[in-house]
Amino acid sequence: MLAGMQIDSAQLDTFAAVIDEGSFDAAARRLRITPSAVSQRIKALESRLGQVLIQRGKPARSTAAGEALLRLARQVSLLEVEAIAAVKGQMEGLRLPVAVNADSLNGWFLPALLDVPRELVTAFDLRQEDQDHSAELLRDGTVLAAVTADPRPVQGCRVRPLGRMRYLSVATPEYAERWLAGRPLAEALADAPMLVFNTKDMLQHRLLRKVTRRRLDPPVHTIPAPGPFVRAIGLGLGWGMIEEEVVEPDLAAGRLVEVAPGNYVDVPLYWQYWKLDSPVLNALTDAVLRAAAAGLRS
Amino acid sequence: MLAGMQIDSAQLDTFAAVIDEGSFDAAARRLRITPSAVSQRIKALESRLGQVLIQRGKPARSTAAGEALLRLARQVSLLEVEAIAAVKGQMEGLRLPVAVNADSLNGWFLPALLDVPRELVTAFDLRQEDQDHSAELLRDGTVLAAVTADPRPVQGCRVRPLGRMRYLSVATPEYAERWLAGRPLAEALADAPMLVFNTKDMLQHRLLRKVTRRRLDPPVHTIPAPGPFVRAIGLGLGWGMIEEEVVEPDLAAGRLVEVAPGNYVDVPLYWQYWKLDSPVLNALTDAVLRAAAAGLRS
Repeated sequence: MLAGMQIDSAQLDTFAAVIDEGSFDAAARRLRITPSAVSQRIKALESRLGQVLIQRGKPARSTAAGEALLRLARQVSLLEVEAIAAVKGQMEGLRLPVAVNADSLNGWFLPALLDVPRELVTAFDLRQEDQDHSAELLRDGTVLAAVTADPRPVQGCRVRPLGRMRYLSVATPEYAERWLAGRPLAEALADAPMLVFNTKDMLQHRLLRKVTRRRLDPPVHTIPAPGPFVRAIGLGLGWGMIEEEVVEPDLAAGRLVEVAPGNYVDVPLYWQYWKLDSPVLNALTDAVLRAAAAGLRS
Repeated sequence: MLAGMQIDSAQLDTFAAVIDEGSFDAAARRLRITPSAVSQRIKALESRLGQVLIQRGKPARSTAAGEALLRLARQVSLLEVEAIAAVKGQMEGLRLPVAVNADSLNGWFLPALLDVPRELVTAFDLRQEDQDHSAELLRDGTVLAAVTADPRPVQGCRVRPLGRMRYLSVATPEYAERWLAGRPLAEALADAPMLVFNTKDMLQHRLLRKVTRRRLDPPVHTIPAPGPFVRAIGLGLGWGMIEEEVVEPDLAAGRLVEVAPGNYVDVPLYWQYWKLDSPVLNALTDAVLRAAAAGLRS
């Protein structure tokens, strides 16, 4: 299976199984071999490469040295499934793990999945992750591709720009009347309750700085899911930044109003994916680029 | 501040700061004392209690022995803020951390936040967590309360039943025509693509067992966010279980149909919260019980 390569494929599979399952015993059960066989294979692989590959803990983790090998294991596994499919004429058991940031998953991304030829993919395995974590998941091979706001290529990956999401600052008319009316905006925003998605969500703070040129510290509610975030604004809990496509119907109908009209925050997005000659990954990349062209600003 | 108790409050605050910030140095910055003062306080507290309280690592973590103390620190902090507020006549700086399962956050829960008297809370800090993790967050004091499917009380917490969420199996009419029509349901469901929320989401599998009396292994797509999960079903990617209140309009309009009419899965939910004589927590509990009475089956 790995002819021509310098790494034993059984050892490689065993290494990936230990990391996936978290322990030598669980890997042994999955591979239907004895724990001592697992241990021997790992030791052989480690002495072959002259590196400790696994931190023996609960759970067992890859060392920094092991990460490149872990990605190799995932890449080989994808290419094997595709080769078998090409031989047999049908795709079986291919899971396609992809990380997507929350707002993209809640917005323009989903149609891309429908646009991948059905015969190519058995199962999409999406993860909702912010960009910091996506890079790590790409690096260690947990995901094959990611939508991320980070343009710096992860080693071994290609990067394609997707376009920009534009975020507008919005609140209900009642909220605006209660908290913002009749005084300068920069002053009002110092007291007006604000929503954030999580502690890493700096969109609201970026708008505050744009509008007020100061660092403000208003009361903050954290609502860590895109749908509930939008609904919490609609209920009047606070103001927050919502993607223009999502918020457009509410603005048009007057259910929401802009807090700082004419101000916005743009977030450029990127598609990072493994440099692999994989038909599935190429088809998904094409579909994601089409969905982004339809749903994002260029 | 902790008169009558056997633990020095400065030592307790320092311990909580180390866990919150992840290191002695960061705790020193937050508390505006020197790292060696942090170290001295922690050593004094550990020798006072005869237990190692902190695993010195990156990040620093509480030991099992330290967890009860961590919860004490959070509880004292809440009661202090409330006492100060009672004296000064206004609540300042109170963050109320609460864990909520994804479907509740996406459904009946949010109105409860609006129903807590505004003068009681400065900031809601919601976390979207599944029930396993919620118990841990309650135990170590990261959250004060949680909506969970787990009726077993976490030590030191009260449990109140909230009602049941009912999940129906749904798909688009086109999907049903393509995958389910013209053959026995149990046979069709073995091949028909199915959506799950994450690897712990057993709702679909529970319905499969109810309907087919067998363990099936259909193709599975993972869509880990409630809104996108519903939209992916609406796009025809697969069938899945959606909460009846969320899916009702789509069923009424014929945009979705039931996959296994007459079958459903009920999930009872519970409110777990610290046993504390706290006005804020009592007010939130009342509001959550009212929202549940309005939005859940009894």
